[in-house]
Amino acid sequence: MKYVITIGREYGSGGRYIGKLVAEKLGINFYDNELIDKASKDSGINEAIFKTFDEKKESLLGAGIGAYRYDMSLSQKVFLAEFDTIRKIASEESCVIVGRCADYVLEGYKNVINIFICASLENKIKRAIEFYGFEPEKAENQINKINKKRKSYYNFYTDKTWGRASNYDLCINSGIGLDESVNIIVAYAKMRLNLK
Amino acid sequence: MKYVITIGREYGSGGRYIGKLVAEKLGINFYDNELIDKASKDSGINEAIFKTFDEKKESLLGAGIGAYRYDMSLSQKVFLAEFDTIRKIASEESCVIVGRCADYVLEGYKNVINIFICASLENKIKRAIEFYGFEPEKAENQINKINKKRKSYYNFYTDKTWGRASNYDLCINSGIGLDESVNIIVAYAKMRLNLK
Repeated sequence: MKYVITIGREYGSGGRYIGKLVAEKLGINFYDNELIDKASKDSGINEAIFKTFDEKKESLLGAGIGAYRYDMSLSQKVFLAEFDTIRKIASEESCVIVGRCADYVLEGYKNVINIFICASLENKIKRAIEFYGFEPEKAENQINKINKKRKSYYNFYTDKTWGRASNYDLCINSGIGLDESVNIIVAYAKMRLNLK
Repeated sequence: MKYVITIGREYGSGGRYIGKLVAEKLGINFYDNELIDKASKDSGINEAIFKTFDEKKESLLGAGIGAYRYDMSLSQKVFLAEFDTIRKIASEESCVIVGRCADYVLEGYKNVINIFICASLENKIKRAIEFYGFEPEKAENQINKINKKRKSYYNFYTDKTWGRASNYDLCINSGIGLDESVNIIVAYAKMRLNLK
């Protein structure tokens, strides 16, 4: 049986790491930045362009480059290429997919489990300093900016609200611990899919 | 060790029933309407008044009774009496508390686990017809109205947003099944509190 676990996540919540461990425990593939490589290859769009627009709908506008229409269409092309790749992957294999509105893209598909990982601001700051080298005094501001972009990207491309419990099957605050979060997700998936 | 599990829930999600089973499985007390009885006794406010204002901040206004200030203060009195009772219970015993902004009231307390239960509209309608005798053609509208009131009550009395994943430790869509939801919550609580 094929199934997909999508993981939406606040920046700094450890959602990517949790997703990677869930995939390892279940013996299925994991896609986060790997999705960009695949979508780039599938679509023929340059990978650098993907990295610029991936989950950031307004990045070039913010940087002051004025070619509005050009940017928007490039951003949308990237979204659509990722969209196609997500559907292709879902039809071919079981996997964990992090971000990229995968829950929305796979709406109506069978055996899709939608997870959201959040964390307290305190824990997000701690993680951003420890793992991503953020400066302590700038961390809160930077984290909030990144999460605002994720929210804006998600809300723009879907008809849903990022981080609202009713969009997902299961939402976990990773404050309980990353391994513990993994265990809960794996237990949930096994229950839902009748896996051994 | 004392602990409290608070359960926020969409109307029609089965959250009350899930909470009751969680309390039974963990061998702790359960408060939903029981809280009204207790708060009424503790405060000396008539129980009928409690039932009018419980989790419904604007009920009498909507009914066209014009004594705005009187209503508001009565509504607030009920909220504060429930608030006191929740804190009293939490200091005395382990329990499950459904609704009444208990997560907000107990902010900063040790060993409090905040859960939110949601469900698809389809499942909420099914449940409301089956268990609460709603007429099928009116169910959607009525459910949405009740949930709007819950949201408005919660958002009015707290600094948070009802149903936003980041407010809670764990959010579950009860579509996986009520018993399954109970099992996940119990497993989560045992992990978090190091219970056997």
